[in-house]
Amino acid sequence: MLGRNYPGQICSAASALELVGERWSLLILRDAFFRGHTRFSDFERSLGIAPNILTKRLETFLANGLMEVRTEPGAPREYLLTEKGRALKAVIISLNDWGDRWLRPGPIDYIHRNCGGLTRQVVICECCATEVPLDEVGVRPRKL
Amino acid sequence: MLGRNYPGQICSAASALELVGERWSLLILRDAFFRGHTRFSDFERSLGIAPNILTKRLETFLANGLMEVRTEPGAPREYLLTEKGRALKAVIISLNDWGDRWLRPGPIDYIHRNCGGLTRQVVICECCATEVPLDEVGVRPRKL
Repeated sequence: MLGRNYPGQICSAASALELVGERWSLLILRDAFFRGHTRFSDFERSLGIAPNILTKRLETFLANGLMEVRTEPGAPREYLLTEKGRALKAVIISLNDWGDRWLRPGPIDYIHRNCGGLTRQVVICECCATEVPLDEVGVRPRKL
Repeated sequence: MLGRNYPGQICSAASALELVGERWSLLILRDAFFRGHTRFSDFERSLGIAPNILTKRLETFLANGLMEVRTEPGAPREYLLTEKGRALKAVIISLNDWGDRWLRPGPIDYIHRNCGGLTRQVVICECCATEVPLDEVGVRPRKL
């Protein structure tokens, strides 16, 4: 079986993939972000995922602080996104935008909840304050 | 072995993950985007990935039009990103930003190649023309 770590990869994207790069992980988060799912049975039903896999993924999220559990007497436990977990929304948006553009248009639009307007994920330059085409995004060793 | 498809998930993010959600896929693309790698041996060396896995991943990229092959007499074949493949850069940027912020600061900054300025990935609203915090990004069925 393939491990889920990327030893030797000193890279924040690789570190992120160690937590959310396994099969189903990002789709579980998607349902938490955009469908408001919080219960095991909600995720199980919407994803058609095997319960043992779902249990493992939720345990990984809890262990790494992407979700936390809320329990109330007489109710099923709920898995709630933390701020750290919610910040991964940007990854789902990128994947969705790409699929919409390059595979087939999907069934949803991302909107700004406050005004109902369509949204777009972009890269901006803090120096020239303009939108940067992806082909013009490069990397540089970080100054420490 | 886990399959790589997500049957029943009518969603562009799920469709995207069917092509790039397998172990190592996004890190191979990262090296193509930001390190300019084009040769099998470059990817193999920088990732420490098993050759049979690398072969499979590159074949998936070729079959789905994310990369194309260039061959020149006497030189190893090169795997070049297509426009479709290059558009996935946004996914790596999202993952990297999240890891930098929530796991540990990584060794690189994303910059605007033209001016050297630092870049930032954001969501903007096309209606109010402002930056939208991720918590205010929602979904709506697309009008066809």
